[in-house]
Amino acid sequence: MDLVLGIDGGGTGCRAALATTTGDILGRGRGGPANIRTDLAGACNNIVDAARQAFEDAGRDPALIASTPAVLGLAGANVGDYKQRLIAILPFSQSDVENDSLISLEGALGEHDGAIAALGTGTVYLARRHGQLRPVGGWGFQVGDLGSGARMGRDLLQETLLVYDKVRAGSTLSDIMLERFNHDPSDIVEFTTNAKPGDYGQFAPMVFEHAAKGDVVGQKLVERAVADVEETLAVFDLAPTERLCLLGGLAGLYAPLLSKRYRAIMHPPLQDALGGAVQMAAKRFGKAGGGHG
Amino acid sequence: MDLVLGIDGGGTGCRAALATTTGDILGRGRGGPANIRTDLAGACNNIVDAARQAFEDAGRDPALIASTPAVLGLAGANVGDYKQRLIAILPFSQSDVENDSLISLEGALGEHDGAIAALGTGTVYLARRHGQLRPVGGWGFQVGDLGSGARMGRDLLQETLLVYDKVRAGSTLSDIMLERFNHDPSDIVEFTTNAKPGDYGQFAPMVFEHAAKGDVVGQKLVERAVADVEETLAVFDLAPTERLCLLGGLAGLYAPLLSKRYRAIMHPPLQDALGGAVQMAAKRFGKAGGGHG
Repeated sequence: MDLVLGIDGGGTGCRAALATTTGDILGRGRGGPANIRTDLAGACNNIVDAARQAFEDAGRDPALIASTPAVLGLAGANVGDYKQRLIAILPFSQSDVENDSLISLEGALGEHDGAIAALGTGTVYLARRHGQLRPVGGWGFQVGDLGSGARMGRDLLQETLLVYDKVRAGSTLSDIMLERFNHDPSDIVEFTTNAKPGDYGQFAPMVFEHAAKGDVVGQKLVERAVADVEETLAVFDLAPTERLCLLGGLAGLYAPLLSKRYRAIMHPPLQDALGGAVQMAAKRFGKAGGGHG
Repeated sequence: MDLVLGIDGGGTGCRAALATTTGDILGRGRGGPANIRTDLAGACNNIVDAARQAFEDAGRDPALIASTPAVLGLAGANVGDYKQRLIAILPFSQSDVENDSLISLEGALGEHDGAIAALGTGTVYLARRHGQLRPVGGWGFQVGDLGSGARMGRDLLQETLLVYDKVRAGSTLSDIMLERFNHDPSDIVEFTTNAKPGDYGQFAPMVFEHAAKGDVVGQKLVERAVADVEETLAVFDLAPTERLCLLGGLAGLYAPLLSKRYRAIMHPPLQDALGGAVQMAAKRFGKAGGGHG
């Protein structure tokens, strides 16, 4: 019986699933970070660890790894030559390395046309129509990722400093932020010196929460973020028959705020990204070329 | 005859002037960087070097440093305890360490009430009315410095990526930027990974230049920046009798774009920051407590 592997990897960890060529999952495994840009060899080891666990979980011999093909969805796979270098050292019989957003889309939409919007610490969008892919965004919070948690948190700190300077009117939310930073703008500046996207993004849920209570600073930031998300979605010109799936940590917070046009075509994801990788592997490597369910 | 020192120091270098207690400059000197946050001892050495040169330039014995009082305007003097630590190791008979924006204001406005807007890679504002100081901004480009060259450059890269993704309409300016980054968003992302404020700020003059030619992307960015600057100036509620001085590398580009209200009270600076430090030293340490001219 033929087997396939699906792998979902990112900066915090990776997951593997061993499946039949009809897409039925037999075993699962987990591994450490798979950040191919910062640690290619480490990423490879962690991916193989996860795959080995999936074989063991399924009661199969991990030595079969060498004869099993895999679809891997990895963050950063579209940048530079990291993908080619990883493929060269992976032990699978065949390794199809895709960007993580593609396996997310495959999992979320299955056979349907439509788009995913991954709204978390960063933002990235991917649409598929008649098999044609259209990626948008995902360029990082410094000059992209509009509507992301990182951008919302950064904007909140900016508003807080403008309130401190009495350039703009404050609110409960800006008061809470000033309190948090000891009413000292130097503390905010210090925070921003080495802040990573996730450091800014930690404030995003609080912005949504206060906006919902009518906080003016929170509402302004959320309205801007919703407008940014919808401005990007507009490029896909989604038809009423197509699907929109919101993914990522902020999906549930954005969902009720999008305009009716988008809410009308919004669906929960059919499967997660790992499920998407498995379905892709089953389709690509399965004998009948099918097996999607 | 009594002497005073004025010092103007920042991250790229420092300047010293030896003057009489009536503010007449007798000699000048230059030294290396005076970044008290990153190299306190080095900053002290470079300041003393510059002061020694000023004595020599004036034909005076540098040994008099120990009996000469100084006013020093230094970037970052308002953060943490760097100021106190510097004062403890400076060799002058008295050391008044002020933020660099104060000596800039003193030089630019002299005895007049009003405000300075330092518009360069960063932005910082300082107003003085009846001896009362009101500082605004200067919090760095990550979450502040609206209207600065760094923010304008960062915004330009963001617009360029939005144009690349077809989320927003492009222009000659965005075409030039895409060309510069080989039409590859990854190159822009790579640039932003370690970009310093000055790296972003290098694009600001180009934005003004294209905006002046009617470029829609340039105009949008410049209009937003002008609005940001005016929103901040509004907090000072400057009277028609007060002065506004624009300083910094972008001053000349902003000057014709501000609204009539601000153009009506705009004056060129009377003196530079070093002149301001000298005048402050003459006033503070001079026998008659005066000498401002």
